[in-house]
Amino acid sequence: MNIEQSDEIDLLLGRMKAATAPLRTTLREIHDRGRGDHRGEVATYIPELAKANPDWFGICIVTAKGDIFEVGDVQQTFSIQSVSKPFLFGLALEDHGLDAVLRKVGVEPTGEAFNAIVLDEVSNRPFNPMVNAGAIATADLIAGTDYPDRLSRMLAMFGRYVGREVHVDNKVFLSERITGHRNRAIGHLMRNFGMVGDRFEESLELYFQQCSLLVTCRDLAMMGATLANGGVNPQTRERALDARYVKYLQSVMLSCGMYDSAGEWAFRVGLPAKSGVSGGIVAVVPGKLGIGVFSPRLDSRGNSVRGVAVCTELSERFGLHAFESGVPLESLEQQLDHRGRR
Amino acid sequence: MNIEQSDEIDLLLGRMKAATAPLRTTLREIHDRGRGDHRGEVATYIPELAKANPDWFGICIVTAKGDIFEVGDVQQTFSIQSVSKPFLFGLALEDHGLDAVLRKVGVEPTGEAFNAIVLDEVSNRPFNPMVNAGAIATADLIAGTDYPDRLSRMLAMFGRYVGREVHVDNKVFLSERITGHRNRAIGHLMRNFGMVGDRFEESLELYFQQCSLLVTCRDLAMMGATLANGGVNPQTRERALDARYVKYLQSVMLSCGMYDSAGEWAFRVGLPAKSGVSGGIVAVVPGKLGIGVFSPRLDSRGNSVRGVAVCTELSERFGLHAFESGVPLESLEQQLDHRGRR
Amino acid sequence: MNIEQSDEIDLLLGRMKAATAPLRTTLREIHDRGRGDHRGEVATYIPELAKANPDWFGICIVTAKGDIFEVGDVQQTFSIQSVSKPFLFGLALEDHGLDAVLRKVGVEPTGEAFNAIVLDEVSNRPFNPMVNAGAIATADLIAGTDYPDRLSRMLAMFGRYVGREVHVDNKVFLSERITGHRNRAIGHLMRNFGMVGDRFEESLELYFQQCSLLVTCRDLAMMGATLANGGVNPQTRERALDARYVKYLQSVMLSCGMYDSAGEWAFRVGLPAKSGVSGGIVAVVPGKLGIGVFSPRLDSRGNSVRGVAVCTELSERFGLHAFESGVPLESLEQQLDHRGRR
Amino acid sequence: MNIEQSDEIDLLLGRMKAATAPLRTTLREIHDRGRGDHRGEVATYIPELAKANPDWFGICIVTAKGDIFEVGDVQQTFSIQSVSKPFLFGLALEDHGLDAVLRKVGVEPTGEAFNAIVLDEVSNRPFNPMVNAGAIATADLIAGTDYPDRLSRMLAMFGRYVGREVHVDNKVFLSERITGHRNRAIGHLMRNFGMVGDRFEESLELYFQQCSLLVTCRDLAMMGATLANGGVNPQTRERALDARYVKYLQSVMLSCGMYDSAGEWAFRVGLPAKSGVSGGIVAVVPGKLGIGVFSPRLDSRGNSVRGVAVCTELSERFGLHAFESGVPLESLEQQLDHRGRR
Repeated sequence: MNIEQSDEIDLLLGRMKAATAPLRTTLREIHDRGRGDHRGEVATYIPELAKANPDWFGICIVTAKGDIFEVGDVQQTFSIQSVSKPFLFGLALEDHGLDAVLRKVGVEPTGEAFNAIVLDEVSNRPFNPMVNAGAIATADLIAGTDYPDRLSRMLAMFGRYVGREVHVDNKVFLSERITGHRNRAIGHLMRNFGMVGDRFEESLELYFQQCSLLVTCRDLAMMGATLANGGVNPQTRERALDARYVKYLQSVMLSCGMYDSAGEWAFRVGLPAKSGVSGGIVAVVPGKLGIGVFSPRLDSRGNSVRGVAVCTELSERFGLHAFESGVPLESLEQQLDHRGRR
Repeated sequence: MNIEQSDEIDLLLGRMKAATAPLRTTLREIHDRGRGDHRGEVATYIPELAKANPDWFGICIVTAKGDIFEVGDVQQTFSIQSVSKPFLFGLALEDHGLDAVLRKVGVEPTGEAFNAIVLDEVSNRPFNPMVNAGAIATADLIAGTDYPDRLSRMLAMFGRYVGREVHVDNKVFLSERITGHRNRAIGHLMRNFGMVGDRFEESLELYFQQCSLLVTCRDLAMMGATLANGGVNPQTRERALDARYVKYLQSVMLSCGMYDSAGEWAFRVGLPAKSGVSGGIVAVVPGKLGIGVFSPRLDSRGNSVRGVAVCTELSERFGLHAFESGVPLESLEQQLDHRGRR
Repeated sequence: MNIEQSDEIDLLLGRMKAATAPLRTTLREIHDRGRGDHRGEVATYIPELAKANPDWFGICIVTAKGDIFEVGDVQQTFSIQSVSKPFLFGLALEDHGLDAVLRKVGVEPTGEAFNAIVLDEVSNRPFNPMVNAGAIATADLIAGTDYPDRLSRMLAMFGRYVGREVHVDNKVFLSERITGHRNRAIGHLMRNFGMVGDRFEESLELYFQQCSLLVTCRDLAMMGATLANGGVNPQTRERALDARYVKYLQSVMLSCGMYDSAGEWAFRVGLPAKSGVSGGIVAVVPGKLGIGVFSPRLDSRGNSVRGVAVCTELSERFGLHAFESGVPLESLEQQLDHRGRR
Repeated sequence: MNIEQSDEIDLLLGRMKAATAPLRTTLREIHDRGRGDHRGEVATYIPELAKANPDWFGICIVTAKGDIFEVGDVQQTFSIQSVSKPFLFGLALEDHGLDAVLRKVGVEPTGEAFNAIVLDEVSNRPFNPMVNAGAIATADLIAGTDYPDRLSRMLAMFGRYVGREVHVDNKVFLSERITGHRNRAIGHLMRNFGMVGDRFEESLELYFQQCSLLVTCRDLAMMGATLANGGVNPQTRERALDARYVKYLQSVMLSCGMYDSAGEWAFRVGLPAKSGVSGGIVAVVPGKLGIGVFSPRLDSRGNSVRGVAVCTELSERFGLHAFESGVPLESLEQQLDHRGRR
């Protein structure tokens, strides 16, 4: 965080004493309303996901200064699934630099499904790191002396974002691995084009591991806040991502993070975000906040129904859209409650 | 412009006396370097465009406070072409509101060519207002009692952005009209799906008119500055666009404004922008600046070669990327020179 | 018909006296069974088609010697629609020769819908003369001094196939013309690529005329028999098509004649054929028979439900598949009944 | 062969004494002319193929009675590659019947490349048995108690067609196997959709074996003659394929056998045929002849340049097109020379 941003947030903290409707109260309102929404279906493509309680629902906001505001099932663990993808992309950027990474994976939004077996016809690259093909190519780029070393570097990276040691859910991992025919097909296709190397079967394992990481909704908010804070975890003060790459993660999250809804999301909600089939969404208000929402019922595009609703409402009420120029309905700053737990 | 933004810009102006390398000097440097780049080809698909001098090259920056910094052929007129598209979209939003407009045109980036005869398979809508199909559907939405009234409302809208009366280049208009077989095909296809109404042949005429508007590079910068200033022309203080819609124009410019380069542009340059085949580019630094560049030689994707280079360099040097969180190479503020002409 | 074929048919006629189950009886059986099949829907895309009686059902077989076997509503008139397409292609071949025609329209089956607005990406040609784009390009090739002359040449050609003067249903023609937005789109797109010339709007009119020709099920069988007989109408002995082009019409009918079912039709039924949305199907047993079936209810691919069933049964029972090498279930020859009306 | 066909061929043999230009002389002429054509490139995607002598050139015709006419390098062995595909399809039909096979693989021509990783969107089936996906699905259907048994059943089937024991080129097999990333991708994708079962990795091995079979140009002609003769090898009199399925092999060869040229081939040449990347082509004149041509230089679509030219010339000179109705340029029958070796 640079000094100006710090000043801005201090300013907000100063305002907080006069706040009439503290943020935690607002979140509680939104959470209460969201609990009545039972649309959507829990993902069932692997048995472990189908075991989720469809009513789980947590919302957490972490500021770039580390204040935490949360409500609901914020400590319930679940497998991170595709929410992991932008963060792997960040590690690949640190390992190889921008140009080398872009030779193996593009940054173009695509109308294709997230698990499409399609590469860019001209470059043979996957379209972007948020589709499975791109995430596997990204996993293949993770450096390390051998598979255990690569895995432990990956886990360490996630650990820096969430501020604690992270673990893989072994049942989910084995389940992903057994049913991952389509991802294996993608791997072999990219091997055919030289987009991944000979160790790509190992990289597929890494990819299945990464999808099986156990996280909570609060972890997602902390990961978002780390990006909002220029790559530094606002609680541990540990750097999780080189500052140079923060804008790239946020760009690709804005344009490609929400599956087939990505275009409409960027247009209407205007926040860099990433969702996963287990029902998690991470969103970033650059320089200000990370948002984590968890609710397993998914809409037809694979995004958490309640998660989308929560982010949309927060964006509209507080004017969080990246290109907002009007006056927001309410002032977020006035709602920032210093009782937020650091 | 809100009070905080005004303060920020005043702060910059205060700093300017000490500036050692005023912005105009920097622009001159960039312009000098750019002149040596002769890559790309002038568009020839209509004869009028082919008459452009390939060496024309202008750069203009207008701040959200109305200061102007410019170098080169900034007064050379040319037909606006596709740069007009986001502004028409704004007028359609004002005429019908967001939901009604989105029923006729989407906001999804597309891998298809700008002139593809393809509609979204599910909704039958054009993918977005930046492809020809979307621009024609947008033109069809422009309100008015009859064709002359619709045309004059459209011209008045552009006039508010540039701060003067605008004119259509009749030769270009006739040329567009005669060779517009593909656009007529798109019109009939959308008529088939009810995306445009019975007056769509009139709307095609409006579209050809809109593409044939004469502008200068400085006009483009002023149009960008108007968006940067929340929809108000910073010189005339006239509102050109309802503040509510400014973020939507910028969103769709970021994700779809640069033809097939849109994904890479959003990722690397990170500025809402729109280019046209006559060689113009408008870019916006939200809340701060409008940038106009004009140089007729186009790359294989239809974007001005020098225009892309100028915007890329400005974004990198001054940290203008929408999601920048690191320290820019140079401080733009220190370069803002109060000799900028209001 | 060459001498060998004539001998073969004479041989059959000789056998007929001993036939225990004359063909007319077989057709009656098939017709009786078919009447119980009420699946499918009458086409409604133009109002005139929707007026058809869904129960109309006629079957007619005409041999290459001119014998006629028929049952049901064989005299009911209906608009020929797409069944006209291969015959127009034949006239274009006579007017310009094979190579010139193939520069404007391909002969590749396509997975796209018959009314898709898609041209071959490499050649910019329509895929084949059986899709609307190809039929319009074909209509554009019809020679003549002016529009009335081209129209009368086209009508004369159809007249040679059916053996009488043919007429256009004016209500259908006007209906096609008013609702033909998609076909106009196709026309403008091909104009853009130079696949059709400046008179393409006239050619669109020709195309709408051709689709609106009034025919009966017996007419369709006679058209098929004319192809079976090497291009000569077996009743009038008038040549309708240059012998050199007969194989090309039959080829393109086998591979592209049955909309999206074309691949399966060629594989299972193995007869050159063409269907239309009014419910007609013409099929050819090369050297032997023409088959016409008419029943307005269509399956999801746009083919007459009963028409497909009749042709499939005839092909299987009598071993009519183009590549049949086994022993047919029954001998067609033994069923050819000389009470067939010449 | 039925009695009528036998009579026809005897008739031809009777005429042969008077023949002024025996078929062997005609083939020699065609062969001499073809030797001057050096267009095209030898396939190099696996090293073993690249070792072929580009000048190898053989032509062989075998009649449905077993007479052989040949010229050039007719005894040179090469790996059969894709020419094997229709024959495997026949074995699958015998093992499971038509309906069961069609549930796993379609019969639709496709505009996609032969090695495209694309399945029919509605059915999830490969488009047809001539594309790699379809051939792998077909190989998966080959019955047997275990892998060695399945392999030996497959080899025995090929042995019946060529009339001798066949062998796999082990170098080619290993080469296919190592570089088969794309085919493995296809296999995993079909596994994902349940189009292939758990033993699909074994089936991939079978597929690589099948492609690596060593054959000669004369073998190809004998395989074609076996189909022409209703499934019975005309020399050994052994049945290679159930008569019911002969028409299906020929249908799918006509519509899908020549890669991207399939549509034009069916239209212009009109013969069921299949080509392979090693330079072989088999073609069938139903009821009459099998044709084998071998020449390794391929055109841009992957078909032997000289092979295509030979088949085209034979079809045109002798009127062999499946739907020929005119008078051929020359009479094939008069050229059939009884010095043809049985």
